[in-house]
Amino acid sequence: MGRWQPDARGRLERAALELFGEVGFNQATAAGIAARAGLTERTFFRHFADKREVLFGGAGELQELLAREVRDAPRSQAAPLDAIAAALEAAGPVFERRRAFVRQRQGVIADNVELQERELIKLARLSSALAGALRDHGVPDWPATLAAETGVALFKTAFQRWIDDPDAREFAPLVRRSLAELKAVTADSL
Amino acid sequence: MGRWQPDARGRLERAALELFGEVGFNQATAAGIAARAGLTERTFFRHFADKREVLFGGAGELQELLAREVRDAPRSQAAPLDAIAAALEAAGPVFERRRAFVRQRQGVIADNVELQERELIKLARLSSALAGALRDHGVPDWPATLAAETGVALFKTAFQRWIDDPDAREFAPLVRRSLAELKAVTADSL
Repeated sequence: MGRWQPDARGRLERAALELFGEVGFNQATAAGIAARAGLTERTFFRHFADKREVLFGGAGELQELLAREVRDAPRSQAAPLDAIAAALEAAGPVFERRRAFVRQRQGVIADNVELQERELIKLARLSSALAGALRDHGVPDWPATLAAETGVALFKTAFQRWIDDPDAREFAPLVRRSLAELKAVTADSL
Repeated sequence: MGRWQPDARGRLERAALELFGEVGFNQATAAGIAARAGLTERTFFRHFADKREVLFGGAGELQELLAREVRDAPRSQAAPLDAIAAALEAAGPVFERRRAFVRQRQGVIADNVELQERELIKLARLSSALAGALRDHGVPDWPATLAAETGVALFKTAFQRWIDDPDAREFAPLVRRSLAELKAVTADSL
């Protein structure tokens, strides 16, 4: 205790994901996570408000990154949805860096309805933030809402595809591929 | 009790929405709803499993209607998203018939995080059902998922627009307008 713990946050995250996978999210405790990481419960609470924050602590940061990218998009020929797709591509390295964590996290959420609801609420907030960024760019209200909701649809699909990808491709090319398909299903015939 | 109660379900729905608006969803009880409708608690439970079902009981029916419309769509020139938009337009009368109920319901949900989560879960299920209907139509897996997610984005936006519309326009024209805007934000420049 009190001593500097190298990568305490990372160790707690890995321990938490292992424990959630073994005993289920509801049964896991902060004390159990800390013990598995070889750290104290106090150290756990220095890094996370509760065990749920291990899973959702990064959502606010991701939302800020994406909204900033959209807000800073050049006023070029790009469609609003292209600006969101470019922001998603820019966020690729955030996921790549934590591929194992992100995949394990998705498995934990898929097993728990309450966590799924929480994830959907986070995505709804992301949609509002993206719509705000597009409005700042001069896109009118309803088109901004539509582009943001469609952008979240693109994100969810590209993300699931990245999680499931048997070839472990990077996130950015899967965003581009999903974007091309989204444009096709919007414009082409059945 | 035991006697035939004309439009008992409708009376219970109206009483429930009034009570949710007055005391909040969490404080309202089945007994309180029944009393306000001049009916017994037993009659309430003949129509609804619990008070939440007053708000979400129609979701399964709507999902079936939309999936059926998509499944039965002509194999014409329409894009997958156009097929979903046509299904939404076909569902318009379901909302029109219950405009007052639907609007009050939306207000109750907007005031309660737990109900918002529930609503998002229902929309996620709708997305899966629409993707399944498109796959039955021969649309490949990921494009079907993308079209369904985008279709739900279209639904959410057109629906909110219909709820908020100061001119009380019908649902179908707002779907068409939102679809045109969605196509524009997907294809046109910022």
